[in-house]
Amino acid sequence: MTSGRFIALEGGEGAGKSTQARLLADALRARGIDAVVTREPGGTPGAEAIRKLLLEGAPGDGGAGWNPRAEALLFAAARSDHVEQLIRPAMARGAWVVCDRFLDSSRAYQGGGGGLSDADILTLHAIGSRGFLPDLTLLIEVAPAIAAERLALRDTDGTDRIGGRDTAYHERVAKAFSTFADNEPHRFARVDGNGTPDETHARVLAALAPLLGPA
Amino acid sequence: MTSGRFIALEGGEGAGKSTQARLLADALRARGIDAVVTREPGGTPGAEAIRKLLLEGAPGDGGAGWNPRAEALLFAAARSDHVEQLIRPAMARGAWVVCDRFLDSSRAYQGGGGGLSDADILTLHAIGSRGFLPDLTLLIEVAPAIAAERLALRDTDGTDRIGGRDTAYHERVAKAFSTFADNEPHRFARVDGNGTPDETHARVLAALAPLLGPA
Repeated sequence: MTSGRFIALEGGEGAGKSTQARLLADALRARGIDAVVTREPGGTPGAEAIRKLLLEGAPGDGGAGWNPRAEALLFAAARSDHVEQLIRPAMARGAWVVCDRFLDSSRAYQGGGGGLSDADILTLHAIGSRGFLPDLTLLIEVAPAIAAERLALRDTDGTDRIGGRDTAYHERVAKAFSTFADNEPHRFARVDGNGTPDETHARVLAALAPLLGPA
Repeated sequence: MTSGRFIALEGGEGAGKSTQARLLADALRARGIDAVVTREPGGTPGAEAIRKLLLEGAPGDGGAGWNPRAEALLFAAARSDHVEQLIRPAMARGAWVVCDRFLDSSRAYQGGGGGLSDADILTLHAIGSRGFLPDLTLLIEVAPAIAAERLALRDTDGTDRIGGRDTAYHERVAKAFSTFADNEPHRFARVDGNGTPDETHARVLAALAPLLGPA
């Protein structure tokens, strides 16, 4: 009875996480491993319904939006559903789960804003998902200027909410992720994401070598 | 500059909470007080959207439902939205807010189930709503057999999820509420709800006399 693995990909917008998640899953399947690609917020019908509430706001609220505390609770609820309904069952049948964003995105984006501390985000995760953590979290790091360039290309009409943010914003997020990786080196691997997708993919596989064993 | 009050009505199904909320609001208005009646989960567009997810489950989840931890997070998120968007603003303009269910319902129904403790529920409330509490919580208590009778009348086709539960279930919930009132007497008033709506209403007003002052 083998148990699967859970790999999270983290980093700011424009880091190439979703591309790397796909490339990694392909490489795992080429080795005969059952691989599941998923993302947060979302990944299950319940979590996707919460994602929709998070991104669109509540119908009829006149654009009031969620306060930062309600938002953090909704992210934690979506994660709880995702962990219980998809990630744990997939791992139990031996699959590797590759997830585009997980807990550390909540910490980087929600923690420290609106009076919520990093400790609050971790407490919500402890209650919601019994503190479930990835076997390895790959932090894909790119220079803020490169991330901004990639987002500008992606956002051709200039109206994208994230793409419209400035370099200082990307620097702030990158710094938050970097601090987590510095403080918890046992569960992070840092990956240089400034090159081409194939170059970054090779680095992802190198970072995973201890878990993958010989090809 | 006067500030309003926040009164929560708690108790099991069939206690008469929504009837008493309406009667209380009418009595407050007769005294010239701006009164707002609301309920949980719900009360704001955001919280009502979450209520829908809680009651109906996520679309396409095949009836999987929410695990108890995700459910508790969703209740706390709805409460956070309700407190920030409706309750606090209404109180700030001097209104009295009368709420059908609040935190203690989460404690009675979600706490102690699915591995969640009462302390977990209180922690979610501390993070989600900065621990915001009613000025007074009226616990309307009825004998479990009377509650079951009232629910049987309400649920004429016998398919209601709650109405179909047995007396032991109603006893368990009543005991949970009773324990909270015993342990936190400073914020609870117990109201005998076994009589007619008018009899219970008179007892509600008597319990509120210290806050209301002379009529």
